[in-house]
Amino acid sequence: MKREKLRVGMIGGGKDAFIGAVHRLAFNMDGQVELCCGALSIHPEVAKESGEMLFLPEDRIYLNYEEMIRKESQLPEDKRMHFVSIVTPNFVHFAPAMMALEHGFNVVIEKPMVFSLDEARQLQQKVKETGLMLCLTHTYTGYPMVKQARQMVAEGALGKIRKVYVEYPQGWLSRLSEREGNAQAAWRTDPKKSGKSGCMGDIGTHAANLAEYITGQHISKLCADLNTIVEGRNLDDDGAVLLKFDQGASGVLIASQVAAGEENALKIKVYGEKGGLEWHQQEPNTLLVKWLDAPTQVYRAGSGYLNDYAKHNCRTPAGHPEGYLEAFANHYRNFAQALQAKLHNETPSKESLDFPSVDDGVRGMAFIDNVVASAQSDKKWWDFEI
Amino acid sequence: MKREKLRVGMIGGGKDAFIGAVHRLAFNMDGQVELCCGALSIHPEVAKESGEMLFLPEDRIYLNYEEMIRKESQLPEDKRMHFVSIVTPNFVHFAPAMMALEHGFNVVIEKPMVFSLDEARQLQQKVKETGLMLCLTHTYTGYPMVKQARQMVAEGALGKIRKVYVEYPQGWLSRLSEREGNAQAAWRTDPKKSGKSGCMGDIGTHAANLAEYITGQHISKLCADLNTIVEGRNLDDDGAVLLKFDQGASGVLIASQVAAGEENALKIKVYGEKGGLEWHQQEPNTLLVKWLDAPTQVYRAGSGYLNDYAKHNCRTPAGHPEGYLEAFANHYRNFAQALQAKLHNETPSKESLDFPSVDDGVRGMAFIDNVVASAQSDKKWWDFEI
Amino acid sequence: MKREKLRVGMIGGGKDAFIGAVHRLAFNMDGQVELCCGALSIHPEVAKESGEMLFLPEDRIYLNYEEMIRKESQLPEDKRMHFVSIVTPNFVHFAPAMMALEHGFNVVIEKPMVFSLDEARQLQQKVKETGLMLCLTHTYTGYPMVKQARQMVAEGALGKIRKVYVEYPQGWLSRLSEREGNAQAAWRTDPKKSGKSGCMGDIGTHAANLAEYITGQHISKLCADLNTIVEGRNLDDDGAVLLKFDQGASGVLIASQVAAGEENALKIKVYGEKGGLEWHQQEPNTLLVKWLDAPTQVYRAGSGYLNDYAKHNCRTPAGHPEGYLEAFANHYRNFAQALQAKLHNETPSKESLDFPSVDDGVRGMAFIDNVVASAQSDKKWWDFEI
Amino acid sequence: MKREKLRVGMIGGGKDAFIGAVHRLAFNMDGQVELCCGALSIHPEVAKESGEMLFLPEDRIYLNYEEMIRKESQLPEDKRMHFVSIVTPNFVHFAPAMMALEHGFNVVIEKPMVFSLDEARQLQQKVKETGLMLCLTHTYTGYPMVKQARQMVAEGALGKIRKVYVEYPQGWLSRLSEREGNAQAAWRTDPKKSGKSGCMGDIGTHAANLAEYITGQHISKLCADLNTIVEGRNLDDDGAVLLKFDQGASGVLIASQVAAGEENALKIKVYGEKGGLEWHQQEPNTLLVKWLDAPTQVYRAGSGYLNDYAKHNCRTPAGHPEGYLEAFANHYRNFAQALQAKLHNETPSKESLDFPSVDDGVRGMAFIDNVVASAQSDKKWWDFEI
Repeated sequence: MKREKLRVGMIGGGKDAFIGAVHRLAFNMDGQVELCCGALSIHPEVAKESGEMLFLPEDRIYLNYEEMIRKESQLPEDKRMHFVSIVTPNFVHFAPAMMALEHGFNVVIEKPMVFSLDEARQLQQKVKETGLMLCLTHTYTGYPMVKQARQMVAEGALGKIRKVYVEYPQGWLSRLSEREGNAQAAWRTDPKKSGKSGCMGDIGTHAANLAEYITGQHISKLCADLNTIVEGRNLDDDGAVLLKFDQGASGVLIASQVAAGEENALKIKVYGEKGGLEWHQQEPNTLLVKWLDAPTQVYRAGSGYLNDYAKHNCRTPAGHPEGYLEAFANHYRNFAQALQAKLHNETPSKESLDFPSVDDGVRGMAFIDNVVASAQSDKKWWDFEI
Repeated sequence: MKREKLRVGMIGGGKDAFIGAVHRLAFNMDGQVELCCGALSIHPEVAKESGEMLFLPEDRIYLNYEEMIRKESQLPEDKRMHFVSIVTPNFVHFAPAMMALEHGFNVVIEKPMVFSLDEARQLQQKVKETGLMLCLTHTYTGYPMVKQARQMVAEGALGKIRKVYVEYPQGWLSRLSEREGNAQAAWRTDPKKSGKSGCMGDIGTHAANLAEYITGQHISKLCADLNTIVEGRNLDDDGAVLLKFDQGASGVLIASQVAAGEENALKIKVYGEKGGLEWHQQEPNTLLVKWLDAPTQVYRAGSGYLNDYAKHNCRTPAGHPEGYLEAFANHYRNFAQALQAKLHNETPSKESLDFPSVDDGVRGMAFIDNVVASAQSDKKWWDFEI
Repeated sequence: MKREKLRVGMIGGGKDAFIGAVHRLAFNMDGQVELCCGALSIHPEVAKESGEMLFLPEDRIYLNYEEMIRKESQLPEDKRMHFVSIVTPNFVHFAPAMMALEHGFNVVIEKPMVFSLDEARQLQQKVKETGLMLCLTHTYTGYPMVKQARQMVAEGALGKIRKVYVEYPQGWLSRLSEREGNAQAAWRTDPKKSGKSGCMGDIGTHAANLAEYITGQHISKLCADLNTIVEGRNLDDDGAVLLKFDQGASGVLIASQVAAGEENALKIKVYGEKGGLEWHQQEPNTLLVKWLDAPTQVYRAGSGYLNDYAKHNCRTPAGHPEGYLEAFANHYRNFAQALQAKLHNETPSKESLDFPSVDDGVRGMAFIDNVVASAQSDKKWWDFEI
Repeated sequence: MKREKLRVGMIGGGKDAFIGAVHRLAFNMDGQVELCCGALSIHPEVAKESGEMLFLPEDRIYLNYEEMIRKESQLPEDKRMHFVSIVTPNFVHFAPAMMALEHGFNVVIEKPMVFSLDEARQLQQKVKETGLMLCLTHTYTGYPMVKQARQMVAEGALGKIRKVYVEYPQGWLSRLSEREGNAQAAWRTDPKKSGKSGCMGDIGTHAANLAEYITGQHISKLCADLNTIVEGRNLDDDGAVLLKFDQGASGVLIASQVAAGEENALKIKVYGEKGGLEWHQQEPNTLLVKWLDAPTQVYRAGSGYLNDYAKHNCRTPAGHPEGYLEAFANHYRNFAQALQAKLHNETPSKESLDFPSVDDGVRGMAFIDNVVASAQSDKKWWDFEI
C-alpha cells in the first residue's frame, strides 16, 4: 500500500485561537500531515472564514465537530481523515475525543486532557477498547534535550535520583486581564471552562509531567499551597508544592502566573548521587550536566554525541536553534510515524512511540485533583491518589 | 479570484541533502506553500525515491530541472507551480534560475546566489526585465530580533553608527573532512563547485549581509586576511576582514570554519553614539540593547513592545523560543505574502517585502570578489568594487 | 582625636580554618582594620604558628580567648583591640561574645550567631545593655546588587511584593564526607558542634536572611520538609520550606547540600505587582529587573545609575567584577565606619549602619527552631514563633 | 631571620586616584604587605591629607618621590620600605622606577610600563644590572582561569594553536569627556601624559598581553586600523588589528573606548586543532573549554580539578566569586612570595614567579610602537619590531 500523507481534521482552532495555530504550525512543518477538514469554531461565520484562510475545500469546512466526525466517517478511506486534533478549551475536550474514538478516528488532544479525573479514566478505557492511538500534546517533553535528560537518568548516569526542582513562572496574569478583554485569560480563569484549578491546571500539570518524564518516577505524596493572588480572580493563579516520589526522590514544584516580568520560564533541575541536570525551556537547546568532581558539561541539541532519543527529535545540526514549535512538532511527527507504521503493519521505532499518551492525561488530571485537595487540607502530606 | 496555496517546485534537495530539507521545513511550516513537484536529484533513482518520500505524484517527479521548468510551464495555471526553490550546490544555481525566470516562474534561491559576480549581474538584469520576484535565503536576516535591530538603527535609537563587529566561527572543518567522506565538506571546499572562496563564500557572506542589513550601511573598503589552515584543503577555511562603511562606520568581520568546538556561532555587535546592540544567532530570541548611562535592556522575541517588523516575524508569545527554521520560514512567508498580493493585485505590506533580494545576491558575490582580491593584495585598504 | 586604624583580635581562625581566612581577607582589604592579636586555636602549637604566620607580636598571640580578652582589656586604650572577630565553630560563639561585650569590646561574629534561640536572646540583651556594636557576617547581604534590590523594593519600584523564591543548592555533602576526613564536613554535620540543624542552620539561614533583607518582610508561617539524604549522617542535609510573610507575600525556600555538581548557587527571585528581581550569588554583579510590559533591565554593580546603598558598597567601576570577599569586606567596612563614627562622636552615614546585627542573629536562630519544629509536625502551617 | 610583612612605599595614588586605590586594595588583601610610606601627590596638601587617611605616620608622608626614595634608603633595614608601587600617570613612571632601582628598591609598576620603547629598554637593562625585582600590574593575567587557560595550552590540551581572538570594548570615552571635567579621561587622551596611543596604549596592550600570555606565542606581524572617533580628541579611541604569531597562529585584536554601553568587556577565544577556550573578564570565574566532538566543559575557579597555577591563585572554593581585585592581588601576592623567598634565600615556587615582568613591559611598549606605525602605513603587513 502506498504511503500517503496523514490527514487531520481540526476541532477548534479558528482564526484568532492561539493554540490551534500552534498545532497547525507543528503538524505542517515536517510535511507528514495535511489538514483536510475542520470544525474550527462554534460560530459559523468564523468557522467558514477560518476554513477558507486555511485553504480547506468548502465541503470539508464543518460547523461543529459532531457533523465533522459523522461525515468524515462516511467518506472513502483514501479521502477521510486519519485523525482529529482537538484544540478547544478544556471543557470541550472529552466529548469530541470520545466521539472520534467511537467512530474509529485516532486523536491528538491538547492538555489538560479533559475536565475531570473521571472523564480521563473513561477516555483511557475507550482508547484501550478501541486500540486507537491518542497523543496528548504536553509540549515540553518534545524537546530533544528533555529526551536526552530522561535517557541519561534512565541509564543511571546520575546515580539514584535524590532531588527534583521544577519551576514554571509566568507573569501574564499579574493583572485582572480576564476583565480587560483578554479572551485567553477569560476562559483560563473561568472554572466552568478551565476546571477546578487555574494555574496548576494550565502550567502546573506541565511541570509535573516534565518532572515525572525526566526522572521516570511518579509523585506519591504532596503538600500544596495554592493562592489566588489577584483580587477578583476565580481560580488559583499561583502555587507551590512539596513533592515525594515513589522511588525515593523528593522535590519542589513551583507554578505561578503572577511572576511579573516572566515569560514562560519553565526550568527543571534534577540531582542524583553522582551529578545533576539543568534545563531551561527558554534556552531549550542546552542541557547542563553537572558532576561532583569534574567540570559541568554543556550538552547541545543537534550534536553527534547525543543519545538516540535526542537525535531523533532534532532536525538540524548543533548551532541551528530549534524551539517550541519544533518540540510541538516532535509529538506530531512521532505520532505520525507510529501511526504510519500501524497503518502499514510495521513495527514502529521505539523513538516514535515516545509521545505523551492517555496515561499521561490521566496522571495530569489526578495531579490537579490531588493538588487541589492537598491545598484545602490542614494535613501536611497528602497521598497522591489515582 | 480565490486565494490558493502557493505551489513550489524544488530543484535539488534529494533525500540526503541538508539545505533542501531545511527549505521544505521552512515553507511547509506556515501552511501557505505546498510542494507540487521537484527535480530533486541528478541521479534518477534518488530523484524518484525522494519524490515518493515527499508524497509527490509520479508525473511531477522530474529527472532534471530543464524538464521540470518546461513541463510545468505547459500545465494549466491553476495546477502549475508558482515558483521554484533552488537548493543545489552553488555551481548549479545560475542556469536553473535564469531558465525559471525566462519561463515566467518566480524564484527562491539558496545563497551564495550564483558562482560569479558576472552571473549575479545577469540574474539581476533578468529579474528586472521579467518583473518576477526573487528571494535569496540569507537565513539570518529572517530572525525577528535582527529585524528589531535594523529598525532601531534606522530610527536613530543608537545615534550615528560607529562600530560594527560581526563574527561567525564554526568548527566543523577543523579536520580535512572532505577526504573523510563528508559530502557537505567535499563540495564546499571544491573551487569548482563552491566558487573562489570557501569560508568567506559560505559564511563570510552571511556575516557581511547581516552587518549591512542591520546598519543600513554598505561596506566601502576592506582589508582581508584569508587563510587555508587545514593542510591539503583547496579553499580558504578562515579569514578576518577590517571594514569601512559608506556612512562612516568601521568594523571587523571574522569568519572561520576551524574554530574547533564552535557550532554556528554567528554574533553581531553594533555601536552608535548613544548605545549598542548585541545579538547571538545561537540564542536568537534575545537582543541586548546597551546604553551609555542606563541599564542594558533585554529585548525578547514575541514581546508586545517590539516594532512592527519584529512582531510580524514572530509566531508565538515571548518565552516560546523560535529558531533557525522559523527565521528561514519568515523569508518564505514574506515572499509568499508578497507574491499572493501581486497575484491578486493587492499592495503588499511593507513587512512582507522585507526579504533578501537579487540585489543582496549581487552584493554577496561582490563581497566574495573583493575579499579575495584584498587578501591577495599587499595594499592595506581595498576599495569595494561592484 | 586622631583617627587610628581599628584593631581587631581574632578568636578562632587558625592556619587551616576556612572562614577565619575569609574574615582576614575581608577586614584587611580596605586598610581600615588591622589584626593586632588573636586566640587562633585551642591547640597551643597551632595558635603560635598561626600567630607568627600572621605577623602578630609574640605577646599578643594568646592561647585562649579568655586570656586574650582579659589581657587586652588591661592594655592602654591606644594599644588594645577595638573589637573581636569570632570565627570558631557555632558552639564556641556565645561564651566569647558575651565575655567580649562584658569587657567592653565590640564584636563581629560569624553566623549562625549562637547555638540556641535562648543564647541569641541573651546576647541581644547584652548588646542592648552595653551599647556596644555587634556585626553578624551574613555575607550575602553585603553584595551591592542585593542592596540595590532591597532599596528598589523599599521604594516601591515593584509595587506590593507577592512572591519570594530563594534557593541555595550546594553539592559538597553529596557523599558521607564527614567520615572521609573532611574537617569542615565533620563539625558541620555534628549536632554537638553545629546545633539542631545542619543544612538549614548552615545555609538555610542565609537564604532566609536574604529573603527578609530584600523584601523587608518577616516570615510569619512556614511549612518545612527536612531530609537527611546521605545515609549515616546525623543532621539534615536538605530541605524545602513553603513560606508566608507578614506583609502578604508568599514563597518557597530551598536549601540542599546534596545537589551534586552545584557549588554555592544561592539565587533569589522576588515579584511584585509591577515587576520582578532576580539575583544569583555566583554572578553577583548583575541584578535582573523584570517588568510587566517592558524589556528586562540588567543592573550592574559599579554603575552610575545605582542607588546610594549599592554605590557605597562598590569599590570599582562597572565591569571590574567584585565578589564574595568584597561582599564580606563590605560588612567589615560598614561596621568599621560606624564604629569610627561612634568613637569620634560623629553621626554615622545611613549606609554604614546597614550591616547585619544581633537582631538578625536572633531571627536566624528562631528560623532554625521553627523550621525544625515544622519539619517534625504533621500540621501544614507552623506559626513562626520568636 | 624572622619573616616580616613586606613594606611598600607608594608613588602617586592620592585620595581621588582610581588605580592607586586599586593597588592598595590589592596589596592589603592578603595581609602580606603593609603600606609604610608614600609620595601620594604632587600637591602637598593632597599628599598630606591622603597620607593621613591611609594612617601613615607623619614623617613618612613625603611630598615627592625623590625625597621618599632618598630618605627611605637612609632608614635602617628593618624599617625602610622593601619596594615601591608606582601608580602615577604613564609619563611619571620611568624616572621614579629608575631611581628606586638605583637605590636598591624593588618595584611594582602600573602599565603601560613607561612612555617609550627606549625607556622600556633602559628599565629592562637596569633591572638586569641591579638584580632587583619588577612586577608590572597587567591585571588580567592574574585571574586564575587565565592561568588555567595558559597551562592547558602549554600542555597541548588543544593541540597546535590556530586562532586567537581578543576583544576589549569599553564605552566610557563615547563622549568628549576630557572636556567635561573627567580627570581620568583628560590625562588618558593627552599625548603628553599618556604617550603616542590612547586606546591601544591603555587597553590594547592588555589585550595583546593576554593573548601572548595564554598562547605562549609572540605577535610577529600585524595590520592595524586606528581611529579617533570622537571629534576633537587628541589620541586614538578605537582600533582593530589583524595578527600573525611567531608559532603559526593568526588572529584579531579589537580595542575600543567608544563601544557605547560596554563596561570593561575584555574577552578572549583561542582555538587549536582539538578544541577551544573562551574567557570573559566580566565573568572571570568561568573558563569554557570547547571540544570538537564532545560537550563543552565549564571550568570554574576554586574547583579541585584545576591545575596548580590556577589553584595557587584562588582563595576560596568554587562558587565564591573572586574578581578584579583578587586578580590584581594575585600579582602582588606572587611578587611578595617571590620577594620573601629571595630575602630569605629560599627557592620561590614556580607559581609565585608567574607575575608580569619588565620583559612584558618592553613588549607592551613595542606593541604600541608597532601598532601606531602599522596604522600609519599603507602596507598591509607590518613586521613586529622590538
